Amino acid sequence: MEASEIHILSVGTALPGDPLDNADLARHFGMDPVWEQWVDAFVGTRARHLSVDLGTGKLRSTLADLATRAAARALEGAGVGAGDIDLVVLGTATPDQLMPATVNVVADRLGIDGVPTYQLQSGCAGAFQALDVGRQMLRTGGHRTALVIGGELCSRHYDPGVDLARLDSAELVNFVLFGDGAGAAVLTAEQVTGAPVIHRVLNRLTGLNREPGQIVEWTGALDRADADRSHIKEDYKAIEESVPVMSREIAEEILGDLGWTAADVDYLLPPQLSGRMTRRIVDGLDMPLADEITRVDTIANTGNAMPFFQLEDTLPQLAQGDRVLGISVESSKWIKAGFALEVQ
Amino acid sequence: MEASEIHILSVGTALPGDPLDNADLARHFGMDPVWEQWVDAFVGTRARHLSVDLGTGKLRSTLADLATRAAARALEGAGVGAGDIDLVVLGTATPDQLMPATVNVVADRLGIDGVPTYQLQSGCAGAFQALDVGRQMLRTGGHRTALVIGGELCSRHYDPGVDLARLDSAELVNFVLFGDGAGAAVLTAEQVTGAPVIHRVLNRLTGLNREPGQIVEWTGALDRADADRSHIKEDYKAIEESVPVMSREIAEEILGDLGWTAADVDYLLPPQLSGRMTRRIVDGLDMPLADEITRVDTIANTGNAMPFFQLEDTLPQLAQGDRVLGISVESSKWIKAGFALEVQ
Repeated sequence: MEASEIHILSVGTALPGDPLDNADLARHFGMDPVWEQWVDAFVGTRARHLSVDLGTGKLRSTLADLATRAAARALEGAGVGAGDIDLVVLGTATPDQLMPATVNVVADRLGIDGVPTYQLQSGCAGAFQALDVGRQMLRTGGHRTALVIGGELCSRHYDPGVDLARLDSAELVNFVLFGDGAGAAVLTAEQVTGAPVIHRVLNRLTGLNREPGQIVEWTGALDRADADRSHIKEDYKAIEESVPVMSREIAEEILGDLGWTAADVDYLLPPQLSGRMTRRIVDGLDMPLADEITRVDTIANTGNAMPFFQLEDTLPQLAQGDRVLGISVESSKWIKAGFALEVQ
Repeated sequence: MEASEIHILSVGTALPGDPLDNADLARHFGMDPVWEQWVDAFVGTRARHLSVDLGTGKLRSTLADLATRAAARALEGAGVGAGDIDLVVLGTATPDQLMPATVNVVADRLGIDGVPTYQLQSGCAGAFQALDVGRQMLRTGGHRTALVIGGELCSRHYDPGVDLARLDSAELVNFVLFGDGAGAAVLTAEQVTGAPVIHRVLNRLTGLNREPGQIVEWTGALDRADADRSHIKEDYKAIEESVPVMSREIAEEILGDLGWTAADVDYLLPPQLSGRMTRRIVDGLDMPLADEITRVDTIANTGNAMPFFQLEDTLPQLAQGDRVLGISVESSKWIKAGFALEVQ
């Protein structure tokens, strides 16, 4: 069955407050310059934006706040109004509440109504899943214009009152790896010259008999009852081993599906776990001809928001014939995700 | 664009433990016979299954446990193995964790791997959204056989140690309205004689400028830090006013889309909020010729599991030419949901 091609019309993003660099965190948590150098060298993430106020421990913005701002910018960029949107999809690991779904709060604030909405619960793969659901629904559902959103409020799990010096390195790294943010894209089923076509979205569980690489409980640091209960667990050894390999497999699968070679990729949007991990992954991908689009070093790992930040940097650079490869790995239960775009 | 028709091959369900009737709850919470009669008369829900052990306050099963059991039964009913499933979609308001998504834990336990998975965060509309995503992906995604799951673990919000006599009626009713459970269906893109075709799935946000009718926070009663914080809020007045009206609008829209009349509906699967509310809604729908399929009186409101329990009762009764109308209203942010099936 032949279906119409779906284009990305625009992208918008939003970040809370001012950037916090590693010196800011060292000052707040009372860590010494050695720690700051360790973060710079071994994590490679230099700054992040957090919704949580380090001084008061209160959240200054919700996921709905950030997602609404990002979506409003995407709508403005596409030159479409709320009434033109006939489908909304949001991917996040950190919704504001279990009910109502954050996607519906965002739709309400934007003035979008009477349309299908979907909220996907996922880690780093959620933005790709949201793009795929948006794309497939545009192809079969009788819709014309979709708003696709991704975002995280990692601050829900961020305790500014913790004694960082007493944490082991696996716990400590969570305080520097992640950032808050949201991004959004407007997708259209119309033919639009100059806008990239979404050729392929990959979303493939590869978790059989594998322990989760990342576990995040419902309850965040700001509302936890039991301080002994660990709310975020990561197996960094498994992540460091698996993600570069899985990234290569994702690239091979997508390129193979489309009959592209590595040399055909003009822009590479690699996984954004940390500055250092992204460096290792890109080296392993061996695509020296592609321009790398990376934001993790300045805004940290923003989960489902990140692909939109990368697209925001990519879209203005695209010319006729350009090809884009996006790659992400969700280490929770080992999901391969990716997309391929082309300006036709 | 013409796309292939999607059939429901089988349905499976799962409930935790033994049923708890209103006398059981009255005994546990030390309530008198008048309270029990009040629940029977004004709520109309006679029993429910709970994962939480009223004696110990511990959870005896997770959502992944229930969903895996329901899905295994659906697979068995369809006569397909884990290796035949090339797409999994789960709808829930109450995931076990934020990461990994419960859908991936379930897939792992069933032995499903290498396929796309999606988890939709939604209240009562989530099962309909999951059916729709499954159906649309089967139509465009190159998939053949989808496993679609819905379930709730309301027990996460159930505090067996609460003093029920001191709660106001709006809070108290949460202890009798809801139940745990999971359901699953196998969908196929193959042509199967005798299996119902999914003609239409409705999923329409109608929340513009309307306050949420239901709010559920991340944190449940079993892990709450702040006993004063209300984790579940319902506006029962708004729900009682809106749901019957919205149910009629859903029926009118779906029947209108398909050119059916009320007299064409052989089986009616109405919203399952409580025994009494369902009674009122069905009276308002005025479809005396349709067989009503209701389970809420014996298993309570099981959210995203419920449509599967209703389908489980419906499927064995269906004959050539039979038409089925399913209706649900999610009061969180006012979502209209429904489906229409037909044995062709």
